[in-house]
Amino acid sequence: MRTLQVALAERSYPIHIGAGLLDTFPLAEQVRGNQVMIITNETIAPLYLERLTRHFAASQCDTLVLPDGEKFKNLETLESIFDALMARRHSRTTTLIALGGGVIGDMVGFAAACYQRGVDFIQVPTTLLAQVDSSVGGKTAVNHPRGKNMIGAFHQPRLVLIDTDVLATLPQRELAAGYAEVIKYGLIRDPDFYHWLETNNDKLLSRDNEALSEAIYRSCENKAQVVADDETEQGNRALLNLGHTFGHAIETATGYSQWLHGEAVAVGMLMAVHMSVRLGWVDAALEPGLAGVLAQWQLPVTIPPGMTPDQFIDLMALDKKVQNGRLRLVLLRQLGEAVVTADYDAVALRQTLEAFCGT
Amino acid sequence: MRTLQVALAERSYPIHIGAGLLDTFPLAEQVRGNQVMIITNETIAPLYLERLTRHFAASQCDTLVLPDGEKFKNLETLESIFDALMARRHSRTTTLIALGGGVIGDMVGFAAACYQRGVDFIQVPTTLLAQVDSSVGGKTAVNHPRGKNMIGAFHQPRLVLIDTDVLATLPQRELAAGYAEVIKYGLIRDPDFYHWLETNNDKLLSRDNEALSEAIYRSCENKAQVVADDETEQGNRALLNLGHTFGHAIETATGYSQWLHGEAVAVGMLMAVHMSVRLGWVDAALEPGLAGVLAQWQLPVTIPPGMTPDQFIDLMALDKKVQNGRLRLVLLRQLGEAVVTADYDAVALRQTLEAFCGT
Repeated sequence: MRTLQVALAERSYPIHIGAGLLDTFPLAEQVRGNQVMIITNETIAPLYLERLTRHFAASQCDTLVLPDGEKFKNLETLESIFDALMARRHSRTTTLIALGGGVIGDMVGFAAACYQRGVDFIQVPTTLLAQVDSSVGGKTAVNHPRGKNMIGAFHQPRLVLIDTDVLATLPQRELAAGYAEVIKYGLIRDPDFYHWLETNNDKLLSRDNEALSEAIYRSCENKAQVVADDETEQGNRALLNLGHTFGHAIETATGYSQWLHGEAVAVGMLMAVHMSVRLGWVDAALEPGLAGVLAQWQLPVTIPPGMTPDQFIDLMALDKKVQNGRLRLVLLRQLGEAVVTADYDAVALRQTLEAFCGT
Repeated sequence: MRTLQVALAERSYPIHIGAGLLDTFPLAEQVRGNQVMIITNETIAPLYLERLTRHFAASQCDTLVLPDGEKFKNLETLESIFDALMARRHSRTTTLIALGGGVIGDMVGFAAACYQRGVDFIQVPTTLLAQVDSSVGGKTAVNHPRGKNMIGAFHQPRLVLIDTDVLATLPQRELAAGYAEVIKYGLIRDPDFYHWLETNNDKLLSRDNEALSEAIYRSCENKAQVVADDETEQGNRALLNLGHTFGHAIETATGYSQWLHGEAVAVGMLMAVHMSVRLGWVDAALEPGLAGVLAQWQLPVTIPPGMTPDQFIDLMALDKKVQNGRLRLVLLRQLGEAVVTADYDAVALRQTLEAFCGT
C-alpha cells in the first residue's frame, strides 16, 4: 500500500493505493460515529457492496443502491439520498461512503456536504477516472439540465481508498475514459510523466497492475499538489479543466447519456491542443502525437456529428470559468505548462470549432 | 447607521443597521461582478423590490419572486432558483440578494452556497426574526419533509443590510415571532440585556424605533460573538438553539404551515426553562416571568393540541444535535448561562413533555 497526503490543514486527508484494499484496509477505524451509509449503483453493488459492508458489522450500516449513469446525477437522485438518510435517522455524526465511479462520488460527496449542513464521507472509487481524478480534491456536484456540475460544493472526504484490483473488472471503455484524465496531468504540469506514459503505453493498455498503479499514484500526486495549492479554484486549480470546457459542451449537447465524461474530455483536450497550436503556443507535433495515443485507447478524436460552432459557443457560455461575460479557457503554453486565460484570439477559437465541426 | 462586524477571518462581513438603508446604503459598490439576482417573495415584492433594483441600473439585475411561506422552503423551490440563474446565465461572479424573512434568507443563502459551488450573497432581512437571527451567521438550509433545516450549508453573506424602517409594515404576529429570538439572547448569554428588555417592554411593544433598533443591535452583537467563536457549530454555537429542539418538533408536527418559527421557539424556550427548573438548575421564578412576557407579546405558551410526549420524543430524535443516538438539549444553568448537554435526567424530559401535553 502506498499513501499520499492531500495537504489542506485541518481538512487534510490520505489517499491509500494498493491491491486488495477493499478487504484488507481497516476501514471501520476511520469512522467517527456509529452510523454508516454505503451508497453505490446497480452495476457496482453486486461486485463489491457486500465485501464493503463486512467492515461495519459493529455499526448501523445502511446501504443505498442508485441507478447507474450520468443522467441520474441530478437533484432528484440527491433527494433520494436525503430521504434514505432521514428514514434511517442518520445523525450529524454519520459517515457516507461513496462506492463507485465519478457520478457516485460527486453525488454522495454533495449529499455529505449538505446533509445536516455537512457530514463525513469516504471515497471508494471503482473506476480509473474516479481514482485518478474525481475522488480526490473535494469537488462535489450534481448536474443541471442546462449545465454539468452546476450545483455543488467543495467538501473534502476523510480519506480516499483506491483498490487497484477493481480495475480488472472495469470495461475497456471505462478504463480508457479514465486514462484521458491520466494523460491530462502530463499535458498540464508533468512532462516527465507524459513521456513515461508514452514509454509504458503498451503495458498500460494490457492492464499491467504495476504500471497502472504507478500511473494512478503519479496522477493522484499531481492532483493532490494542485488541490493543496488552490482548494476552491480561485486560480491554478482551473488548469485541471484542460479539455473540460469543450467536453462539457459535448456532454450537455448529448444529454449526459451517450458519452462518458472521460471521452468528452479526450476530444476536448485535443481541441485545446489544436487551438494552442493554432495560437502558435505549442509545437505542432503535439497534436498528432496526442491524437495517436487517444486513438490507441479507442478514445474519440472527433466530436458528435451535427454539433455546430454556434452550439459550442452557446453551451460554453455557461461554463463556470466565465467571468463577467468573458469565457476563460485552459490552453497549453508548452507541453507540461497549462494556463487559464481569457486573453486569446477569438478567431482561433472559432477556427478550432470549425475544424472539429467540419464546417 | 450603526455597523457591527462578524469576525471570521477572510469570511468577515459587516452588519449595517439603520433607518432608511434600503434607499441610502451604497449597495452596488458591494457587488463584485456585473450580475445580480434579487430573490424575494410575493408579500415582500410589492413593498420593496423596486426600491432595491434601483441600486443596480448599471448591472444585469434579474428578479425572482417566490411564493411566501415556510412550506415552500424545500428542494423544489431551491431548484426553481437554480433554473432562473441558469436561464439568465448567471456566472460564478454573480451576487444573489435575499430580500425577505428567514425563509427567503435561508433558501437564497443555500442557493448561493451551491450554485456553481458557491457565489456571493447579500442579506436584506425584512422581518425582525431575520434581522436579529437568521440573516447573521451563515446558516443556510431548506427543510426536508421529515425535519427542519436538514439540507443546508454554512455559507456566510458578504454583508447584512438591516433597514429598521421595514418593521413599520410588519404584521404584529411576525414582530412577536422575531421578538422570541431577541429574548433568547438574554436568556442564554446576556442577563443585562434580558433585564433591559423587561424594563423597555412597553416601548418595544409599541414599536418605538429607537428601542427596537437598540434591541436589534444588541441581538446581532450577541449573535456575531457566538458565530465568531464557533462558525460551524462544533460547540457553543448550539446554545443559540435554546427552545429550538422542542420548537422544531412542533413545526414538523404541524407541517411548517400553522406556526411561525419564532412562535414555536417561544413555547420551546418556555419548555426548556421549565425543564431547567425541574432539574433544579434555575430559579423557579424565571418560568412565570418568561411566560408573562411571551403572553404580553401574544406568543404561545402552550403546544398545539393533540401532540403527545411520544410524538415529541420521536420527532426530536431527528434533531441535528443528536450524537450517537443521544439527544443533546440546550438548557439553562442560570439566567444568562445556557449549556448544551446530553447529561440530564431523562425523567425530567418526560415530565416536561407530559406537563405541556397535559397528560
